[in-house]
Amino acid sequence: MTARKKKRRLKIPIIKRAIIHNEAPGTVTYTGKKANISTKVEIIDYNKDHYSRVDSENIEDAFGFESSKHITWININGLNNTKEIERLGEYYNLHPLIQEDIVTTNQRPKMDEYEEYLFIVFKMLHYTDEGDFINEHVSMVVGKDYVTTFQEADGDVWDGLRDRLENAKGRVRNTGADYLMFALLDAIVDNYFSVIETLSGKIEYIEDQLFEDKVEDDITQDIQVLKKEILRIRRAVVPLREVINRLEKTDTELIESRTQNYIRDLYDHIIQVSESVDIYREMIWGLMDMYMTTISNKMNEVMKVLTIMASIFIPLTFMAGIYGMNFEYIPELQYKYGYFVLWGAMILVFFGLLYYFKRKKWL
Amino acid sequence: MTARKKKRRLKIPIIKRAIIHNEAPGTVTYTGKKANISTKVEIIDYNKDHYSRVDSENIEDAFGFESSKHITWININGLNNTKEIERLGEYYNLHPLIQEDIVTTNQRPKMDEYEEYLFIVFKMLHYTDEGDFINEHVSMVVGKDYVTTFQEADGDVWDGLRDRLENAKGRVRNTGADYLMFALLDAIVDNYFSVIETLSGKIEYIEDQLFEDKVEDDITQDIQVLKKEILRIRRAVVPLREVINRLEKTDTELIESRTQNYIRDLYDHIIQVSESVDIYREMIWGLMDMYMTTISNKMNEVMKVLTIMASIFIPLTFMAGIYGMNFEYIPELQYKYGYFVLWGAMILVFFGLLYYFKRKKWL
Amino acid sequence: MTARKKKRRLKIPIIKRAIIHNEAPGTVTYTGKKANISTKVEIIDYNKDHYSRVDSENIEDAFGFESSKHITWININGLNNTKEIERLGEYYNLHPLIQEDIVTTNQRPKMDEYEEYLFIVFKMLHYTDEGDFINEHVSMVVGKDYVTTFQEADGDVWDGLRDRLENAKGRVRNTGADYLMFALLDAIVDNYFSVIETLSGKIEYIEDQLFEDKVEDDITQDIQVLKKEILRIRRAVVPLREVINRLEKTDTELIESRTQNYIRDLYDHIIQVSESVDIYREMIWGLMDMYMTTISNKMNEVMKVLTIMASIFIPLTFMAGIYGMNFEYIPELQYKYGYFVLWGAMILVFFGLLYYFKRKKWL
Amino acid sequence: MTARKKKRRLKIPIIKRAIIHNEAPGTVTYTGKKANISTKVEIIDYNKDHYSRVDSENIEDAFGFESSKHITWININGLNNTKEIERLGEYYNLHPLIQEDIVTTNQRPKMDEYEEYLFIVFKMLHYTDEGDFINEHVSMVVGKDYVTTFQEADGDVWDGLRDRLENAKGRVRNTGADYLMFALLDAIVDNYFSVIETLSGKIEYIEDQLFEDKVEDDITQDIQVLKKEILRIRRAVVPLREVINRLEKTDTELIESRTQNYIRDLYDHIIQVSESVDIYREMIWGLMDMYMTTISNKMNEVMKVLTIMASIFIPLTFMAGIYGMNFEYIPELQYKYGYFVLWGAMILVFFGLLYYFKRKKWL
Amino acid sequence: MTARKKKRRLKIPIIKRAIIHNEAPGTVTYTGKKANISTKVEIIDYNKDHYSRVDSENIEDAFGFESSKHITWININGLNNTKEIERLGEYYNLHPLIQEDIVTTNQRPKMDEYEEYLFIVFKMLHYTDEGDFINEHVSMVVGKDYVTTFQEADGDVWDGLRDRLENAKGRVRNTGADYLMFALLDAIVDNYFSVIETLSGKIEYIEDQLFEDKVEDDITQDIQVLKKEILRIRRAVVPLREVINRLEKTDTELIESRTQNYIRDLYDHIIQVSESVDIYREMIWGLMDMYMTTISNKMNEVMKVLTIMASIFIPLTFMAGIYGMNFEYIPELQYKYGYFVLWGAMILVFFGLLYYFKRKKWL
Repeated sequence: MTARKKKRRLKIPIIKRAIIHNEAPGTVTYTGKKANISTKVEIIDYNKDHYSRVDSENIEDAFGFESSKHITWININGLNNTKEIERLGEYYNLHPLIQEDIVTTNQRPKMDEYEEYLFIVFKMLHYTDEGDFINEHVSMVVGKDYVTTFQEADGDVWDGLRDRLENAKGRVRNTGADYLMFALLDAIVDNYFSVIETLSGKIEYIEDQLFEDKVEDDITQDIQVLKKEILRIRRAVVPLREVINRLEKTDTELIESRTQNYIRDLYDHIIQVSESVDIYREMIWGLMDMYMTTISNKMNEVMKVLTIMASIFIPLTFMAGIYGMNFEYIPELQYKYGYFVLWGAMILVFFGLLYYFKRKKWL
Repeated sequence: MTARKKKRRLKIPIIKRAIIHNEAPGTVTYTGKKANISTKVEIIDYNKDHYSRVDSENIEDAFGFESSKHITWININGLNNTKEIERLGEYYNLHPLIQEDIVTTNQRPKMDEYEEYLFIVFKMLHYTDEGDFINEHVSMVVGKDYVTTFQEADGDVWDGLRDRLENAKGRVRNTGADYLMFALLDAIVDNYFSVIETLSGKIEYIEDQLFEDKVEDDITQDIQVLKKEILRIRRAVVPLREVINRLEKTDTELIESRTQNYIRDLYDHIIQVSESVDIYREMIWGLMDMYMTTISNKMNEVMKVLTIMASIFIPLTFMAGIYGMNFEYIPELQYKYGYFVLWGAMILVFFGLLYYFKRKKWL
Repeated sequence: MTARKKKRRLKIPIIKRAIIHNEAPGTVTYTGKKANISTKVEIIDYNKDHYSRVDSENIEDAFGFESSKHITWININGLNNTKEIERLGEYYNLHPLIQEDIVTTNQRPKMDEYEEYLFIVFKMLHYTDEGDFINEHVSMVVGKDYVTTFQEADGDVWDGLRDRLENAKGRVRNTGADYLMFALLDAIVDNYFSVIETLSGKIEYIEDQLFEDKVEDDITQDIQVLKKEILRIRRAVVPLREVINRLEKTDTELIESRTQNYIRDLYDHIIQVSESVDIYREMIWGLMDMYMTTISNKMNEVMKVLTIMASIFIPLTFMAGIYGMNFEYIPELQYKYGYFVLWGAMILVFFGLLYYFKRKKWL
Repeated sequence: MTARKKKRRLKIPIIKRAIIHNEAPGTVTYTGKKANISTKVEIIDYNKDHYSRVDSENIEDAFGFESSKHITWININGLNNTKEIERLGEYYNLHPLIQEDIVTTNQRPKMDEYEEYLFIVFKMLHYTDEGDFINEHVSMVVGKDYVTTFQEADGDVWDGLRDRLENAKGRVRNTGADYLMFALLDAIVDNYFSVIETLSGKIEYIEDQLFEDKVEDDITQDIQVLKKEILRIRRAVVPLREVINRLEKTDTELIESRTQNYIRDLYDHIIQVSESVDIYREMIWGLMDMYMTTISNKMNEVMKVLTIMASIFIPLTFMAGIYGMNFEYIPELQYKYGYFVLWGAMILVFFGLLYYFKRKKWL
Repeated sequence: MTARKKKRRLKIPIIKRAIIHNEAPGTVTYTGKKANISTKVEIIDYNKDHYSRVDSENIEDAFGFESSKHITWININGLNNTKEIERLGEYYNLHPLIQEDIVTTNQRPKMDEYEEYLFIVFKMLHYTDEGDFINEHVSMVVGKDYVTTFQEADGDVWDGLRDRLENAKGRVRNTGADYLMFALLDAIVDNYFSVIETLSGKIEYIEDQLFEDKVEDDITQDIQVLKKEILRIRRAVVPLREVINRLEKTDTELIESRTQNYIRDLYDHIIQVSESVDIYREMIWGLMDMYMTTISNKMNEVMKVLTIMASIFIPLTFMAGIYGMNFEYIPELQYKYGYFVLWGAMILVFFGLLYYFKRKKWL
């Protein structure tokens, strides 16, 4: 049906970048940009009475905790050494597809339920101090007595949680791995609020500039960047909402019923985040309209100045032109006060036109 | 997949405000703006034959009513003294997450069902006399024989209901806590109608200004403010609609079947509110288009004036210029009536052009 | 989360109109505009062999028909005498909420099923001869052997039905109250087609004006009025569609199975109406775009005239200016035919520019 | 709630056309435009071994085939003689509502299942040679051994099918009435592809004109006509999609299971049609934007010409004006080569400005 | 209802192309553009220990593998020799509708489940080196021990898979025909990422041009081409998503449970593709807005230049005109330094206006 159309060829060059080689599914290849980071392991082992923390660069230090009677949180920073990930995956019996997803940084948020563990993928969002928007790929394996998290690089939003674990604040030390999972996700979602708040600050900054008429040339570009940021936030938030919804409803034995109340609360928060995303998205789209109106208003003002100047001085110039003519007989030229009378007429025309523009509210 | 894109950096400053610290879930921290309000307690205890009212600043006055055989409405004003809320929560056995939600002012409307009570969060909307839009966070615990409401500050929409309670008007004194809950929500939803009506008044005011051509510069800003208001109203209304829908369908023993008819009616009202919100939303978005058309129409008018003035006087000036030349031999200059003939020609051109513009309907 | 934003205050005055007092639910207060109409009662009592009609201003004439073995249609015109409505409601045992809905003119269309009757609210739409759009609130109680209808004022779309009842045309005399209900709703829906047809006439009128370039200034306002009308029609149609859908699926004993075919057909019609509403809505929104294009096209034409006039005469004026200079030595001025040569040059420039604009298709 | 708004009255005349009289449901009144067509009957009676065809203008020739052991296709052309339709309807025991739908040309596509037959309404679309879009109302009754089709006028898309029937090509002669129904619908849907293809040709024609800058004035009108055509096509396609979906899922005994595969294929085709409709719809809406951009680009070009001409010659004219002054003492006027020096200055200014505009890429 | 509208006739010619003849369903007619390609057969027969590959132009070489105990992948290139397809179809007992779908290149992606095999239709997308967008129709029959694929022409995205098959890399040699089916689809979906990446490169190229102000005239056309490409990609992706979703949920015995994990992962990928499509679609639509803003900004700049030049020199020209008049008595003309005083005044006006425009930020 579309076969018969003649093709119009784009004048833009075709850059066939991103040749994604079709590898065997389950191949563990890191696809992110943080490629030179050595893998670090952080192991927090705790229960009501016990707390220990090990920091290491040796993945094998994370082995053997499954037999401890404590809850263990194993946090891996740095995904480019895929061999290490594979060793860990083998030890903890992770499905090859999970291993692939851990290092595939463009994997969207999702949850897979396996018999012995839950596998959850999500995104950690933040702005750098330079204002760049960072979207870090994080995944999490939740087993009976352990949670393993995988991050692309150092630095995360879980310092508050680490503090609570160490100092036995809140409920977290008295509960199982399911509550730890909740607490980790809760920190992620709380952080989304911060990110959205920063974004809303940017939107208001542009709005204020538009309202106070301080707009410089590149605002379209700014708006376009905001559009992309909100779309990327949305891409992190919307699938995570589904994940948490499924977490709330799943009947896995890994999650105790008393944790369900907390997950329900978390679901509430993520819905709130996603509603905010939708609202700010609409606002960003609206900025473009506002900008267009601003441009049109400015053009209107430019046109008015031109019209007023031209409309006043063109007739006056004409009047002067009349008496610059060299006809032999122009009676007015001989009048003694001709020149002054003409000045009077010109001043009349001048104020008449001023009054006309005043009445039109152009002045 | 998006990894290879070069980043464009925004020229706008990044204000990393709103650093939301990830606290342990269930931590009771007030997040609103009304921070210096002392907590007030208002207790109305009634049944068919009995009515008493206590106003106090001591939270403990609200204890002990669970054993009364009357219906008790405990209304708390002021949420910043979180200690008081926690004491009440402890006494009435409220889940820590509920205590957190009571003081978290950006919590969206929701309902949680617990075994012994329902917990409902909603928003009370109103305009101050200065025209500021106020969005007050309110929550409600509905138990077997009592309803507890939590407001950020004094002043609410329940005076009509207090009056009916005191004077035993309407059904409310003859019914249980479930009907009281309905009556409280009904007053909230009725008030939404007022708020929307006020908003519709603003929309019409702007519309009228647009139609009567009295628009001043800052209308984009006004429209933007309206957009934000309608989005905030929507954010209060849409989740409350879900809440009431669930109230209608829940099979909790806390709500008697004869109250269901009233809740169904309430659901009807909230749907009506939310339909109005959608319609006014569309209208506000339409205002921007109307404004753009107004601007374009004005620019058209400006252009016409310029075109008419310039098109008439430029050719005339040219004609005068011709006979201002100093050629030794310009025959017309010697003609006796040359000057007057030229005037005639100029007047012809003048009226010819006027006629032309008239026919084009520019005049 | 939105708490930290500085408020921008609207410059538009806040008119806190529509202070809706929160009355006790079930309070019967007329909210419409037809406040001085005396209540009229019209009672048509019929079966296969019998037909009688009573017109009265006494509500009590409508009592006692429940025991007749005929089908009775009681039509009440005028809702402002709420006392009368309450008396009727008491006699026929109508729930207080129903009595409230009968006189609450902004109640949206809905159906409530009670044990002994169905309660249906809908809207009767029509244009007055002056072109005002009227949205009349109508409600209907359908019992075992009777149908009661409540209208705000005289005049409705049921004269065809009255005629068929009186003259025993069609099926209506041979069937029960359920078929009468269907016939009443069918007339309402048929009338929606007329209303939409009238609206489509208006749309085409504006379209034709736009196409034939006869547009006057106030077309934005016209389009805005059309927008509001279509939104109000939509508000009447969409909930009624749900009502009829539920009527089709309900398993009440009040509706016989042989009437179901007719209701299915009616559902079909209301879907057709609502599809038309959506299409015309889109068309009305499109009118604004068309108008913008028209404005832009006109501005283009204005600009072309200005550009042509200015571009031709400004260079010519310059040429004349050159030879108006008073230099002592300008050789051309002494040439005998200098003046005529210049004229030649000017005519060349004139036609050259004309040709240029012709080639650009501006002429 | 909307009651208090002051009414703005449209300046456009109200044409209360289309007064649709509310007739008794089941009344058979032809509502189309082809009112003077005599009813023609075409009867094709066939089975594996037998084929006969009768063309007649007498509706009674279509009676009596129900007892034949062949499959019978009765095709009626011309619906304005409603008496004939009623006679046929009576003979074949068609429900009054079916008879009404057969002649109600604005009935939307639908399927009604009755015990003895299926009733299907759909639209036959085509363009006349003059380019008018025709939307013909067709209905079909599918019984055990017969299919009856009702068309408004001669001429249809079934000649290929007639050919296959006569020459025993394909499966159709070996199968039952259900396959005939499928074949008839299949031809209708195949024809939709042709119609959409023609429409896409129009869209591309306008696109090409826009791209090659050959646009004349009335393109808004053309786009508006396209919008209406696509909306009418959509109105025929979308409900038919539902019909075919229901046909696929219905468990009527009238359709054999081996025909289900074919209907599933047909459903696939109609989905494809409706996807195309949505895509072309979006394209048509996009045309308007493209046109706006074209207009703006043109205005930009007009403005540039004006700006260049004016910006170059206005300063030059000023320079000439200076030396046209009559001051007694203007030293430059006495210089011998003053005139030529001024020309030099003027040429410098001229080329300087040209260079400036060149650098701005306006030339 | 729409019958009474007067028809407006398009001025554009009606090209009734694409006369699609309604052939009997199941007729095998090739509808694509690659009509002169001889059919090639590639047969890969393998199991854990065995691998053989046959390339042939004789379709019969593909027969007989059903009895082999290996998995067989039969890949057919070239669909225009429909006789060959029919022979294969007959041998493998393919339903006539399947044979039709194999060669109907505009068939949308779908899956049909038959008892002995699954039939899947999808699209292979790629850009040629010249930048043309190619949409190749591919279908696949998945039986117990074999997969047959049908392509329009040579060249596909399965070379990586062929390599893995030959060299026994990955899981594919150890698994059944269901995993082969998955691997084939996985390569298709992976390739969609490449295609989208290329498209995103084009979008960014246009964006960069817009931001760096290098836009040439034909950008509307480029955007329009992008719109069409994204719509065609969407048309390939969205129905395939449904297909894979159904594959995940189907309970056919042809797919082993251990393959389900892989298909779930594939579904995840196709969702990711379709989300990207939606995002880029929105971006492309946004480009048009950005372009409009760019045009308006340029026009603004043009207007400013004109306004500044005209506003400065028109008053100056007027001043010069005054003293070019020939009145007998103009006192200033006799002043000795009149000329220089005037120059002073002119320079004052000049800089005054410059300062004015500076303050307005036009310079």
